[in-house]
Amino acid sequence: MPTTSGPALPGPAASTAPLPAPAGPVVAALDIGGTKIAGALVDAGGRLLARAQRPTPAREDAETVLGAVGAVLAALAASPLWDAAGAVGIGSAGPVDAARGTVSPVNVPGWRDFPLVERVCRFAGDRPVTLVGDGVAMTAAEHWLGAARGHDNALGLVVSTGVGGGLVLGGRLHPGPTGNAGHLGHLSVELDGDPCACGGRGCVERIASGPHIARRALDGGWRPGPDGDASAAAVAGAARAGHPAALAAFERAARALAAGIAATAHLVEVDIAVVGGGVAGAGEVLFAPLRRALADYATLSFARGLTVVPAATGTDAGLLGAAAATRAA
Amino acid sequence: MPTTSGPALPGPAASTAPLPAPAGPVVAALDIGGTKIAGALVDAGGRLLARAQRPTPAREDAETVLGAVGAVLAALAASPLWDAAGAVGIGSAGPVDAARGTVSPVNVPGWRDFPLVERVCRFAGDRPVTLVGDGVAMTAAEHWLGAARGHDNALGLVVSTGVGGGLVLGGRLHPGPTGNAGHLGHLSVELDGDPCACGGRGCVERIASGPHIARRALDGGWRPGPDGDASAAAVAGAARAGHPAALAAFERAARALAAGIAATAHLVEVDIAVVGGGVAGAGEVLFAPLRRALADYATLSFARGLTVVPAATGTDAGLLGAAAATRAA
Repeated sequence: MPTTSGPALPGPAASTAPLPAPAGPVVAALDIGGTKIAGALVDAGGRLLARAQRPTPAREDAETVLGAVGAVLAALAASPLWDAAGAVGIGSAGPVDAARGTVSPVNVPGWRDFPLVERVCRFAGDRPVTLVGDGVAMTAAEHWLGAARGHDNALGLVVSTGVGGGLVLGGRLHPGPTGNAGHLGHLSVELDGDPCACGGRGCVERIASGPHIARRALDGGWRPGPDGDASAAAVAGAARAGHPAALAAFERAARALAAGIAATAHLVEVDIAVVGGGVAGAGEVLFAPLRRALADYATLSFARGLTVVPAATGTDAGLLGAAAATRAA
Repeated sequence: MPTTSGPALPGPAASTAPLPAPAGPVVAALDIGGTKIAGALVDAGGRLLARAQRPTPAREDAETVLGAVGAVLAALAASPLWDAAGAVGIGSAGPVDAARGTVSPVNVPGWRDFPLVERVCRFAGDRPVTLVGDGVAMTAAEHWLGAARGHDNALGLVVSTGVGGGLVLGGRLHPGPTGNAGHLGHLSVELDGDPCACGGRGCVERIASGPHIARRALDGGWRPGPDGDASAAAVAGAARAGHPAALAAFERAARALAAGIAATAHLVEVDIAVVGGGVAGAGEVLFAPLRRALADYATLSFARGLTVVPAATGTDAGLLGAAAATRAA
């Protein structure tokens, strides 16, 4: 471990997985979200050879949050494969600034312009450390091992509490100078639409995120069942049962997403959009109107072959993508 | 001239310019629009060493239009510098399909999926022929010699009868697989907006093109002067004189352009947008509200440094960009 000039990260902890022999070079991956911080050692075949995870102390101060990252790294460092890990990849809730190595996750108020790369570097020794936003990481995972495999120009989307994304252009991950490229959630698709938390108006996220789908369904007269579940997943259930307000909420979300996906196709000529995140779990309740709406907005000749499919890499997408990002760096 | 298997292009014609000594490699450039077909031999310093031009016989059949291209190429071939030209670059009104080498300019109905690259290749011999859309060409020119010089991530916009554009990403022209990337005109910024000629709704072009600015001003009560000029330039003059409907039409166009530019910044992290085309000639009547509106839509941290400036390469942008595209290929 290198000499540190700030508070040291905590020492090794437990909970690594069994150890199959790695296929090709190994990298360490971190997936940092508002709920949990996950880590893994990942081989060139996309296998997670060791894992660690801690809850994110999201309401605590900066050093306490960093402590959870340190605990995850220390758990990975306890693996005999740690010494073989040649790089560290971080996918973090955004905004991130990969150029400066800082993160400011919306749901972790203690971290504002927090120098995460520098602090992880202290732990990682000589290993290069790569930082990308979580939407970029998911896209890297889908391009490497998921539904965007073999596509040289692809958009990855995460539709959840927020709406994020990432891009593959010309066969390579395109994180952009600050690691945020593909951030579809704050494209305005309604010039005069509702004010968005970002300061804009009519943003895709303001219409298509899980909470906004639920809000629209409630506004339209849908009510949660006896369990009180007012999530987008509950709205999806109601939509499957034919509830008009639930269907209308997904229809509107689908139109906003379609306009954003079509905008991406017109701007950078992607031919596939891969949609993941909790809201994508609604399945055809989302994807059927999304495909219909796409035909209305992706109108130019070079965008007509565009397809939309569900993500395939599942809950490990963040870790796999963080690993993939080290190769794209 | 190589052996041809189809109708030959016309032979050499006149009208080449004086011949200074070229600086570095020379390329041949073609700028194909609905009104004129221009050509030049361009050196590595961006000097146009020989020029030729013909009106576009836009309502004629495919071979007649090609004949005008042939006349321009033949005029260039009459220059003693032709033998030194190492490549041919074409910027064409779109849509184009650079992957297939075909063009389908909206205003040239005789050309639909017309195999322009193959036909120009017959004239060009062993020289490689590069095709890009006219918005991409303008962007290449601005990156090479204009207002986007030194910017690694830039958007070029042409706001005229239509709204087109192009992208520079990571320091290089990014034409996309079919040569159309950056096509900002058909981003929907009003999900439920007016139907657009492309089949979409609420497109940037449907609000911000010259004809639509004029239409909105007329709808708002503006009337042309005694000369009957109902162009966007006339509306700009009225706006400078304080006419409310003329000001409102430019304000609305500025908001649509700002939403499209902000979308581009959020998607691919450009830090400058260069706006050319006839409508940009309105100057501060367009640029002042455009800069204000940009603050409303380019809200994410990594987009806040975004600037908008007028294009600098003028009427030769198409030729310079076609020349620059040969280097990016």
